[in-house]
Amino acid sequence: MLDEHIRGYISANAQRFLDELKELIAIPSISALPEHAADVRRAAEWLTAHIQERIGLRTTLIETSGHPLVYGEWLGASGKPTVLIYGHYDVQPVDPIALWRTPPFEPTVAGDYLYGRGAVDDKGPAFAILKALETLCTVEGGLPLNVKVVMEGEEELGGPSIAAYVQANPRQLAADCVLILDTGMAARGVPTITYGLRGIITFEIAARGAAHDLHSGLYGGVAPNPIQALCWVLADLKGRDGRINLPGLYEMLRPVGNDERQIFQAQSAEQEQRLQAGSGLRELVGEPGYTSVERGTARPTFEVHGIRGGFTGEGSKTVIPAEATAKCSMRLVADQPQHAVLELVRQRVAALAPPGVTLEVIEGHGSDPVTVPLDSPAMRAAAAALEDEFARPVAFIRSGGSIGIAAELYTVLQQPIVMMGFCLAEDNMHAPNEQIYLPNFYAAIRSVAGFLKNLARELIRGATPKT
Amino acid sequence: MLDEHIRGYISANAQRFLDELKELIAIPSISALPEHAADVRRAAEWLTAHIQERIGLRTTLIETSGHPLVYGEWLGASGKPTVLIYGHYDVQPVDPIALWRTPPFEPTVAGDYLYGRGAVDDKGPAFAILKALETLCTVEGGLPLNVKVVMEGEEELGGPSIAAYVQANPRQLAADCVLILDTGMAARGVPTITYGLRGIITFEIAARGAAHDLHSGLYGGVAPNPIQALCWVLADLKGRDGRINLPGLYEMLRPVGNDERQIFQAQSAEQEQRLQAGSGLRELVGEPGYTSVERGTARPTFEVHGIRGGFTGEGSKTVIPAEATAKCSMRLVADQPQHAVLELVRQRVAALAPPGVTLEVIEGHGSDPVTVPLDSPAMRAAAAALEDEFARPVAFIRSGGSIGIAAELYTVLQQPIVMMGFCLAEDNMHAPNEQIYLPNFYAAIRSVAGFLKNLARELIRGATPKT
Repeated sequence: MLDEHIRGYISANAQRFLDELKELIAIPSISALPEHAADVRRAAEWLTAHIQERIGLRTTLIETSGHPLVYGEWLGASGKPTVLIYGHYDVQPVDPIALWRTPPFEPTVAGDYLYGRGAVDDKGPAFAILKALETLCTVEGGLPLNVKVVMEGEEELGGPSIAAYVQANPRQLAADCVLILDTGMAARGVPTITYGLRGIITFEIAARGAAHDLHSGLYGGVAPNPIQALCWVLADLKGRDGRINLPGLYEMLRPVGNDERQIFQAQSAEQEQRLQAGSGLRELVGEPGYTSVERGTARPTFEVHGIRGGFTGEGSKTVIPAEATAKCSMRLVADQPQHAVLELVRQRVAALAPPGVTLEVIEGHGSDPVTVPLDSPAMRAAAAALEDEFARPVAFIRSGGSIGIAAELYTVLQQPIVMMGFCLAEDNMHAPNEQIYLPNFYAAIRSVAGFLKNLARELIRGATPKT
Repeated sequence: MLDEHIRGYISANAQRFLDELKELIAIPSISALPEHAADVRRAAEWLTAHIQERIGLRTTLIETSGHPLVYGEWLGASGKPTVLIYGHYDVQPVDPIALWRTPPFEPTVAGDYLYGRGAVDDKGPAFAILKALETLCTVEGGLPLNVKVVMEGEEELGGPSIAAYVQANPRQLAADCVLILDTGMAARGVPTITYGLRGIITFEIAARGAAHDLHSGLYGGVAPNPIQALCWVLADLKGRDGRINLPGLYEMLRPVGNDERQIFQAQSAEQEQRLQAGSGLRELVGEPGYTSVERGTARPTFEVHGIRGGFTGEGSKTVIPAEATAKCSMRLVADQPQHAVLELVRQRVAALAPPGVTLEVIEGHGSDPVTVPLDSPAMRAAAAALEDEFARPVAFIRSGGSIGIAAELYTVLQQPIVMMGFCLAEDNMHAPNEQIYLPNFYAAIRSVAGFLKNLARELIRGATPKT
């Protein structure tokens, strides 16, 4: 049970915590857009100063070949475990900007929600961890265990710099477990720990035909059309039945046991309702023979995120374009290694090139899938803290998303990754009108404080993960 | 044989003719782009003034619901035939602008070529007709027959206003034949008359899924992807074998006779060489079993001109987009009526909608295909003039392109349409670095003067169309 002094401090400072979060969200740290590079740095500097001055950790801004890493540590709890805390301060682009009801970088409270790009992914949850640290430091004069904080500015573009840093500095980051708040809740009010993440590969497929655009009156019927070629390829890679047509892909999957499949089954009705409500879709789709939970978290996906080619302005222009490009990704599930799957894509695309068209697969970023064992002191400490906060058993789920660094840290540190989730399906992550449910922001602060206390005391209350 | 005084006048004024054409090309009359509406009007006003003041026709600028029509007439040749002359003063958009070696609206002469948007489509050839009229009026004090000139500013967007005007004013436009210079040459130095034009329909296919973009981690595997749906549809509509998958489409084709097919065969090797040279393509493609000439002029086509959906900026954004759109056209061949074919498209697209995705076919512009009989006084007059100019037999060809108004005029006036062509395959029509081969510009002036003289005198020299 969380100490009353801790609860009291969080309540007393709730408005200030919110105001500080709004300051952070107001910085348009869009990592994917080169024109926002200075904003990304500004967010990193803001966080470094905040962690140093407000919370009292020893901080460093670590330069990388891309956006900087924010690092902070408090190692004053001799003999106690060390928690490595990860978060990211970069955000997704905001287009289509016209669909935002409030400006994405003017954080706005309406009712129980705070609106703004990054509110829930990941500035709100990451900042909640910092506020938990502040609370413990202030109320108790220090932390109950050792803490290392690392926050990156490249998560939304695949985190190349932090991956390199982790590989190069395993001793600096050594810890007994990793805490990440960048995942979702099974439903509003349901405390949730994510134990599985899909991996991802992103790539572009570029199709090229003639040396320049051609007139379709002159060349229609005799010249290859790169858009058409791209459509043939994309239609082949994913069939109408939702199956991905890459020989060998499904054979790599670690089989899902009957127990887990029953859990998927039990979660599916509620999840379908939630996904439909959050999307405005009349119906969900996908591979026949699998529940929506399994489709969405334990099966690989192939998605086209963007496609562009030829004349797309007002009016019409009857050209056969010289080239067309599709931005794609695949989500991967253990044990589908990113590099092996990308190679399958390359082979298949090469085989699908029609006469007269050159196809190129341009690699983007990637991460391997990860699943974390459910049984460890860190998992139990997290579950106990969440059950204390929400007064309900924890739901252990797989996420359909990818957190590149989680797989990296899991491989390098060989320690549990604890992912406590506070993002709701309706929070419009990566979409216009991103929001955070403010009660979840404060619940996250209390839950993290509780987790750290539990883990330090090894006061696990005998809670065992329930699924 | 063209009179020496006529030839002499054209030679003596060659530089001025070119300077005037450059003035016209410098006006960026892009009809498809609303921001250029004032430029389109400026081109119309420039032409009206030029025809009135320089050539002496009685002119009117005819307002329409779109861009204006330029109309001029000279009806002083009592008892002589009347020729309706058609041209267009609007041009295609210029993107991709980066590929132009000279600014598209700063007409530039280099060697035997004049570069600029509209140089060959259709400002150069249309202006050549006007210079032929000027030449005859000046040298001979008047025209040898009656002439009506109509020039439109909407050809590149399908000519809706002139179609309505022709239907509403058949008596004003009544003539014994129509002269159009907006087609191609079989090859450099080969005098060419086009007797067949493909029709066209343009349309967009819009695919819509969720109410807004979704996160592919959360929704990948369960939400429908409108880009993927569009790819399935486009891949279905046109197969890898080049066949269009619209039941009933090919049954509408008027059979091609063996004679004509032999002509196609004879023309194909040269045409393939020309099309490859003009496009940088390693190989031509298309339906098996047909020569490239038949594929390119006497078979229907389905082409995607532009496609757009989701995130297409720098970097990556792993969304499942809410919508995607493709701009398409089909070229049609007698007897495939535009409205009947559009209905086939609508039916097929509706049948292809996958679960969770709405597909809409948005009609653009269209025209019916047309073929003109080879045997008429006007055809003979044109053939004789061209053979005089080029000292070679005329090649009678079908064009793969569409001239919306030709089908309309053919239907309304029931008179021959004479299409003398001066555009070369390498002239980059509708593409960057559009050019006109200047010797063709002057050949066009002399050929039109000869045609008008021949038709007036009915001095046909016994020339019969050779194919």
